[in-house]
Amino acid sequence: MKVLVTGAGGFVGREVLRILAQDPSLQVVAVDTGLRGLAASPRLRLLAGNITDESVREAAVGDGVDALVHLAAVPGGAAEMDPAASRRVNIDATLDLFDGVAREGRRPRVVFASTIAVFGDTLPPGGVDDSTPLAPRLIYGAHKAMIETMLSTLHRRGAVSGVSLRLPGIIARPKGPSGMKSAFMSNLFHALREGESFVSPVSPAATIWLMSVQQVALNLVHALRVDDARIPAERALTLPALRIGWSDLIAEVARQTGAPSSTVSFEPDAALEEAFGAYPPLSTPAAERAGFAHDGDTATLVARALEQIARL
Amino acid sequence: MKVLVTGAGGFVGREVLRILAQDPSLQVVAVDTGLRGLAASPRLRLLAGNITDESVREAAVGDGVDALVHLAAVPGGAAEMDPAASRRVNIDATLDLFDGVAREGRRPRVVFASTIAVFGDTLPPGGVDDSTPLAPRLIYGAHKAMIETMLSTLHRRGAVSGVSLRLPGIIARPKGPSGMKSAFMSNLFHALREGESFVSPVSPAATIWLMSVQQVALNLVHALRVDDARIPAERALTLPALRIGWSDLIAEVARQTGAPSSTVSFEPDAALEEAFGAYPPLSTPAAERAGFAHDGDTATLVARALEQIARL
Repeated sequence: MKVLVTGAGGFVGREVLRILAQDPSLQVVAVDTGLRGLAASPRLRLLAGNITDESVREAAVGDGVDALVHLAAVPGGAAEMDPAASRRVNIDATLDLFDGVAREGRRPRVVFASTIAVFGDTLPPGGVDDSTPLAPRLIYGAHKAMIETMLSTLHRRGAVSGVSLRLPGIIARPKGPSGMKSAFMSNLFHALREGESFVSPVSPAATIWLMSVQQVALNLVHALRVDDARIPAERALTLPALRIGWSDLIAEVARQTGAPSSTVSFEPDAALEEAFGAYPPLSTPAAERAGFAHDGDTATLVARALEQIARL
Repeated sequence: MKVLVTGAGGFVGREVLRILAQDPSLQVVAVDTGLRGLAASPRLRLLAGNITDESVREAAVGDGVDALVHLAAVPGGAAEMDPAASRRVNIDATLDLFDGVAREGRRPRVVFASTIAVFGDTLPPGGVDDSTPLAPRLIYGAHKAMIETMLSTLHRRGAVSGVSLRLPGIIARPKGPSGMKSAFMSNLFHALREGESFVSPVSPAATIWLMSVQQVALNLVHALRVDDARIPAERALTLPALRIGWSDLIAEVARQTGAPSSTVSFEPDAALEEAFGAYPPLSTPAAERAGFAHDGDTATLVARALEQIARL
């Protein structure tokens, strides 16, 4: 089975590659603009390039693939700053890539990394469940929702077997600029682990949805093999996530790193507080029935995030 | 008030121009690749060109508009034959046009002609109402659904005041190739009016949704002025339509044209019968509350279609 992974050099992509490497039946093609530190092998082909480039897409798809994990994207904050760049990658190159993998007629499984931003920049206060209407406000969320529509259409047409997974906040991202507004969630881990002070841009009362990068990678890989019949007709699933109080998360990170919680102070930013301060209840029975999962509990989530940072 | 109309040379666009011409407070810019037979006036500027051409979009938008009626599209059958052409017009040029009219910050009303094809190529047998999930299968329907998403996003962002209207089958189209699979509905009128025989590609038992071009133009013009608050949050409305038995429609056209109904024979085409043979019940309370309407009854619908053909 030949699997193409885009955005493979990103922090989620690397974790997906790590899991795929454990399955000797797979041939993997990994594409990204940056693949530093990854080592090619007889079962892992590395392809440096941008999927906006037709020749890169052609080289990636080659004579066809059995599955695509499409992670490459202009992320939320960056898309908001440069909507044209978001269109080039998150719409145009994505549609071209879907056409490319469908062309050979092998009906490949296409796993698309969508986002909870399809529900809006502020989530519905009453909660999100499997019947919550999409109402994106950010460019990123709108473009992801548009691709969900096209992927479900291509599925209905029999061109691909499509699964869109709506990802919550993922930790821990690498330090430094990511283009994601949610980067502060990961920076908490980096700071406390390194004994640095951390200024939180949201208040202690904030409530967020989180998933470790290990868990999101497990979910993406699960989506590669899950039976078509277990995915609802709209072909898009909101992933389960732990709903955690920000102060509880800080306490657990402090406990596991041994950092005094006095290193954390709060200077809430109005925009971030509105966007991330009050994630409502989340109910995801469709994804759970299909075998997708969250990290289980806060201690596991934090341990995984710290384990992953240690590997970076 | 300055109104830009794309697809203005089409059969719907011409009817929209006719209504707009009755309002002396309007300045209208009419854009299309073909504008034959239309006459410019101090209040009507004609602009020949394709909206895929940036210079045409720039000339059309000029120093800003107060409203856009966006009718230009690669239609259903043609989009299915050439998905790349559909992307260029129905996605790329449409998104560029929306950005163009939003740029001046006047928050223009944008009226977007969407389609009942967003519900699938075969409609849900249980009926369509305001909560029916979108499930396009045709390229045309998918692209229209994607633009509905972006228009609602631009509305939420305050960039435009958006209204998507999902149009049912419109009669009567001009004779000849239209790129629409539903063209046979109009050809019935042309044939019986001219005393020609008509071979129906759907059975007498077929049930369809129809609206006259006059009525759809009234609805599009109504959408230019309707209060924002009367449009639901998703900013998309399925228009009311008459649900008519095909044999009843044939009988009424025969009655009004004086054609013997013996001139109609039936050779059902499996694909057309599946697509158009069994339109389910249609319920559109949201659009009706917002002041949109269908033709009232079959006799009025047929009379309007014949009146319009006489004008062609």
